[in-house]
Amino acid sequence: MIIILQPDMTHNSQAYKDLMNHLDNLPNIQVRVHEEQGVQQVLTELYLIGDTASLNLDVMQQLTGVERAVRVSAEYRILGRRRDERRPTAFEYNGVRFGQDNLNVFAGLCAVDNPTHVEMMLKVLQEHGQVCTRMGAYKPRTNPYSFQGHGKSCLPYVFELAGKYAIRVIAMEVTHETHVQEIHAALEQTGHPTGVMLQIGTRNTQNFELLKHIGRERHFPVLLKRGFGITLEESLNAAEYLASEGNTRVVFGLRGMKTNMGDPHRNFVDFAHVPVVKRLTRMPVCIDPSHSVGTRDASPEGLLDVMHVTAQGVIAGANMVLVDFHPVPSKALVDGPQALTPDELPVFLEDVRIARDAYEKRVANVRVLRKID
Amino acid sequence: MIIILQPDMTHNSQAYKDLMNHLDNLPNIQVRVHEEQGVQQVLTELYLIGDTASLNLDVMQQLTGVERAVRVSAEYRILGRRRDERRPTAFEYNGVRFGQDNLNVFAGLCAVDNPTHVEMMLKVLQEHGQVCTRMGAYKPRTNPYSFQGHGKSCLPYVFELAGKYAIRVIAMEVTHETHVQEIHAALEQTGHPTGVMLQIGTRNTQNFELLKHIGRERHFPVLLKRGFGITLEESLNAAEYLASEGNTRVVFGLRGMKTNMGDPHRNFVDFAHVPVVKRLTRMPVCIDPSHSVGTRDASPEGLLDVMHVTAQGVIAGANMVLVDFHPVPSKALVDGPQALTPDELPVFLEDVRIARDAYEKRVANVRVLRKID
Amino acid sequence: MIIILQPDMTHNSQAYKDLMNHLDNLPNIQVRVHEEQGVQQVLTELYLIGDTASLNLDVMQQLTGVERAVRVSAEYRILGRRRDERRPTAFEYNGVRFGQDNLNVFAGLCAVDNPTHVEMMLKVLQEHGQVCTRMGAYKPRTNPYSFQGHGKSCLPYVFELAGKYAIRVIAMEVTHETHVQEIHAALEQTGHPTGVMLQIGTRNTQNFELLKHIGRERHFPVLLKRGFGITLEESLNAAEYLASEGNTRVVFGLRGMKTNMGDPHRNFVDFAHVPVVKRLTRMPVCIDPSHSVGTRDASPEGLLDVMHVTAQGVIAGANMVLVDFHPVPSKALVDGPQALTPDELPVFLEDVRIARDAYEKRVANVRVLRKID
Amino acid sequence: MIIILQPDMTHNSQAYKDLMNHLDNLPNIQVRVHEEQGVQQVLTELYLIGDTASLNLDVMQQLTGVERAVRVSAEYRILGRRRDERRPTAFEYNGVRFGQDNLNVFAGLCAVDNPTHVEMMLKVLQEHGQVCTRMGAYKPRTNPYSFQGHGKSCLPYVFELAGKYAIRVIAMEVTHETHVQEIHAALEQTGHPTGVMLQIGTRNTQNFELLKHIGRERHFPVLLKRGFGITLEESLNAAEYLASEGNTRVVFGLRGMKTNMGDPHRNFVDFAHVPVVKRLTRMPVCIDPSHSVGTRDASPEGLLDVMHVTAQGVIAGANMVLVDFHPVPSKALVDGPQALTPDELPVFLEDVRIARDAYEKRVANVRVLRKID
Repeated sequence: MIIILQPDMTHNSQAYKDLMNHLDNLPNIQVRVHEEQGVQQVLTELYLIGDTASLNLDVMQQLTGVERAVRVSAEYRILGRRRDERRPTAFEYNGVRFGQDNLNVFAGLCAVDNPTHVEMMLKVLQEHGQVCTRMGAYKPRTNPYSFQGHGKSCLPYVFELAGKYAIRVIAMEVTHETHVQEIHAALEQTGHPTGVMLQIGTRNTQNFELLKHIGRERHFPVLLKRGFGITLEESLNAAEYLASEGNTRVVFGLRGMKTNMGDPHRNFVDFAHVPVVKRLTRMPVCIDPSHSVGTRDASPEGLLDVMHVTAQGVIAGANMVLVDFHPVPSKALVDGPQALTPDELPVFLEDVRIARDAYEKRVANVRVLRKID
Repeated sequence: MIIILQPDMTHNSQAYKDLMNHLDNLPNIQVRVHEEQGVQQVLTELYLIGDTASLNLDVMQQLTGVERAVRVSAEYRILGRRRDERRPTAFEYNGVRFGQDNLNVFAGLCAVDNPTHVEMMLKVLQEHGQVCTRMGAYKPRTNPYSFQGHGKSCLPYVFELAGKYAIRVIAMEVTHETHVQEIHAALEQTGHPTGVMLQIGTRNTQNFELLKHIGRERHFPVLLKRGFGITLEESLNAAEYLASEGNTRVVFGLRGMKTNMGDPHRNFVDFAHVPVVKRLTRMPVCIDPSHSVGTRDASPEGLLDVMHVTAQGVIAGANMVLVDFHPVPSKALVDGPQALTPDELPVFLEDVRIARDAYEKRVANVRVLRKID
Repeated sequence: MIIILQPDMTHNSQAYKDLMNHLDNLPNIQVRVHEEQGVQQVLTELYLIGDTASLNLDVMQQLTGVERAVRVSAEYRILGRRRDERRPTAFEYNGVRFGQDNLNVFAGLCAVDNPTHVEMMLKVLQEHGQVCTRMGAYKPRTNPYSFQGHGKSCLPYVFELAGKYAIRVIAMEVTHETHVQEIHAALEQTGHPTGVMLQIGTRNTQNFELLKHIGRERHFPVLLKRGFGITLEESLNAAEYLASEGNTRVVFGLRGMKTNMGDPHRNFVDFAHVPVVKRLTRMPVCIDPSHSVGTRDASPEGLLDVMHVTAQGVIAGANMVLVDFHPVPSKALVDGPQALTPDELPVFLEDVRIARDAYEKRVANVRVLRKID
Repeated sequence: MIIILQPDMTHNSQAYKDLMNHLDNLPNIQVRVHEEQGVQQVLTELYLIGDTASLNLDVMQQLTGVERAVRVSAEYRILGRRRDERRPTAFEYNGVRFGQDNLNVFAGLCAVDNPTHVEMMLKVLQEHGQVCTRMGAYKPRTNPYSFQGHGKSCLPYVFELAGKYAIRVIAMEVTHETHVQEIHAALEQTGHPTGVMLQIGTRNTQNFELLKHIGRERHFPVLLKRGFGITLEESLNAAEYLASEGNTRVVFGLRGMKTNMGDPHRNFVDFAHVPVVKRLTRMPVCIDPSHSVGTRDASPEGLLDVMHVTAQGVIAGANMVLVDFHPVPSKALVDGPQALTPDELPVFLEDVRIARDAYEKRVANVRVLRKID
């Protein structure tokens, strides 16, 4: 249950203390205080966790200082959209804006292999005006005997090179809380030449302990990938774990679902859910065309399927694209077969631009014809 | 096994007769003759069906008059693409062209209810330059106690009204061979004011008896929907049933897959397979956004999900769009909740045009940058 | 909507005529009369089909002669169980009883290939006391170039040999209404030496035209297989098509669902639904272990997976087992890899007996301890 | 790649040192030493991890001291079965044997709520001769606002009560490495009155960091549940993470797969995989009927679906049953609707006994008739 306090209530008021005292004495109920800084005032919400089924909603609403009490259900969550809300659907990190209304491309290496390849990649990104990238240091692999990533040892040179080529945000998967500390330390050590967006992969979407840790760690924004065998609802609830611990700078990532119905693609591409996530939540939506498709197959027109599904996500309003490139795909340690090459970057970026442009025309078209705005 | 004859071989040549005689005497093997009219010559292929595993490919290739013998596998089929082929990827019917390189929109009624609604729909289509529509007379329903369509009784007025508003092709689902005869008869009776594309729905994708019947009935082109619980490969094989009986004027339709992983959409939208079907086969590809999505939910930008997924299919090269409209969705007998209204038609068509335009720019972009052509 | 008439109402009474006259005048409503012969009286139900949403339930209940009116929903169907009902959950055909409380094994050939193999199979069945078998004459195949069964040409010798070895019921798949006529004719021609249970395969579960035809054809009992990509609910509704047309002698068959989550089995075995179908409907439940598993792999104990899943179905109360045998699996034209051999029949039958015995002990155990009966 | 050393090779031999020196100098390759204590000798294997694709198998096999080199593939893993192997398929923990040839029932509370309920449960278990139970202290929940378990605070009384009622092994889910430490500490503090089997739930099946930690922590046996959206192969590879770090005392748990094809059950019951896991690996196989079924629905015979699927797992050779009980299901904090009650325990245990008895008869039947042994 969420209790929304009246806007004029301060934490040292007697009313606040009385209310908290009352709530603390409810049996089997824990209270967590959540504050959201609005433009003009602070919104305070109290989250009651535990045996809330035993509480009477009307009684709770009539407590002094309470504006409204809401049972937490699918329709309501910190990251969710409510009918009348004016909460933000965007945030900024290290000079880059992430919102439901803009688009950032994160092209880069699925797995960091060596400084040469990292530099080749970052250089070409800068040449084409990109300020974001993806770089995988920690790689969860299905088979324990496969290469698991270079881990913290590669972080210093990755960060330094990113700074050299003016990259502002690197999306980087983490699979354990120590990885966050290692990233912190390496950024510190190298003088913060760049920023990091922590990426939580599909195998850890419901690793709630990791989510809670990263939720408390509010420094980094988070890209949470959808779990590949669970419903959209369940994955959105996982994102809520981050928010309920305090980190609302979350981008939600679609990456395809595991089922042979999607063959011959590696996963069943689920980018039709881009508008759904934007309707249900305040999160910007990322698409991962590389892991969805998993091959370099092309249609007869000469366009790669990876490019087709990227265009599909973007024309429906996707806000971030995470895409695998590699200077020499045949030598990539992980997922080489699906990687694009640096010389394909301009074609890819132009393809994305065409799709984004079409998206914006579509929005204008519906506004004009529907006489909206 | 498919045996491709030498191009200069006529059916009354002795070599042809000797070959056929030899093949007819093979145990447990049936021979079916298939001819494809090319621009300059007739291509004759013999399909051997039955215990072909016992045949030796080399021996077959050395028979007099045989150019090549090919084992039928996933990679090879009449509707499939072969590496070196120059077979057509388009056909024309009643003045309308259906190809892998163009786009037709079929907006209309999921289920015909009465002449008034049919006329309202056709009139608005003509006003916006459309020459195709969808009109459902035979409706397969999950529940036997639901409305099953008006059947043959509505055909005469549907066809006459189509003629009145210059509609050239109506996509119309059939679920039994008698429906094809009824359509034939009603077109005859009304003086062929329009044309019909027979539509085979997802519940009948593997109703091979129906496919064989319609394959032998070569008058009408066919829209075959993908089966909603089978792999893409299996559905493409079902299309091959039509072709193996003689009808190669087949459009392949994507309409979403049944699994709760696609929630809150009615089905899991599978339009990422548009480029895949074009790569694997010679069939134009249709998308059915209405049955895939199943609702009128919209994203925060004001665009319906039905429009988003349509744009996704079109920007990846879809060649046909089958979409539900209804003058009064709340009174529609079938699938009202997902229908668009006639006053939304111009927005919808403009949305499709934007996406198609983007598709064409994408193709041009990849050609220029890859220096193709 | 279903209208249940008062038990004492005859068809030539004035009240009946008045009621029918009233119902026939309802707009957009068709009336279908359904009678079920009970032990002491005839139960007459009227099925209203069409725009029944516009009817008021209370008004309908108060019409003269009406005992009760029920909206048809998931919970209600002819084949469904209702709370207070005393309808039969069993039927007899050609001397064999099919009920929710007994068990019949149908071991036989997936596809008839020649008289020798048919006779070898039937002979060993008789030697082990079996009076049922499966024999496939019409085979729907994914690939149009695969062997499609010997069709009507094999029927006479199959039926005669069945008579010779005292087989009373043959389960035989049909995929078109003409097959039913052919079976009729061949039984007539051979003097009805045996009986046939018409089998509708998973590709035709929602081929409603075929279901309606066979529903009207009330001579043969029917085995309807579950559709492999649809929910259980949808398949049960398909069975209702048979019943709504008049044939309630239906056995419902589980045969596994198509998804790679069931690998390495060919399909995802769904026999946990045996008790569910018995709870929801009056139909006996059949399991098809051969097509579910699709291989001859065995566990370390030496028991084939086909035997394991058979035992799983039977210990949960399955009423019929459809299982593939072949004298020489390597020469079987269809599905050889999953077939058991005739010398494995006694082991298999004993395995089934052990599982059935356990099922009966389980029922006795729950009765004693729960003090039921 | 796995390199199996010659059996007579000691770690201080020169040949061993030379070999290790050679391997350590291979680029991008890490070497991990794994020893397995056999009855008469120690088997030493070296696991090469990293860019093993660049190594030549023949060259590796010819190195001094190497008996055999094997590329790690699906067919080979520590927990996997190899054709010629004599490795154990059982282990013992705290006086209880876990093997592919016996059966243990773990009935208990899904979530510990208070000492009274815990004691009620343990008392009835002892009365019916049980020495194992399940007790959930750490509960991963889809919704962050749901009750998450009492955590470490309940451990002391749970362990003490277990000791009082002679329970030897408690299955207990952990979701973070600190939970293992807390369990260690609580057992230490209470004087080790019982033992714990660490349970890894379906949401953490591919939480490889947790698996690696628990793999290194070799004190406790582990129950690893199958991931609910991944293939069986992928889950078996996850188990291999435990083994590759040193813990081979692993039980593999089936708990149903997430898909609406299993409705009305909560998950699609996958117990047909019991014999498959036994064939592919050396792990005992556990079934979790409660989470698979998720309801207390019963078949017309009066047997709960939970009991039906338990019997299905056991008759196919399951080695462990994890089942939810609760003294007052309506007051259970988690998953109450699926719980059995303590007064149903004797019926349940007898039901399991009947199924196990049938399994043993089946094994005897196949042995006699196949003349095995």
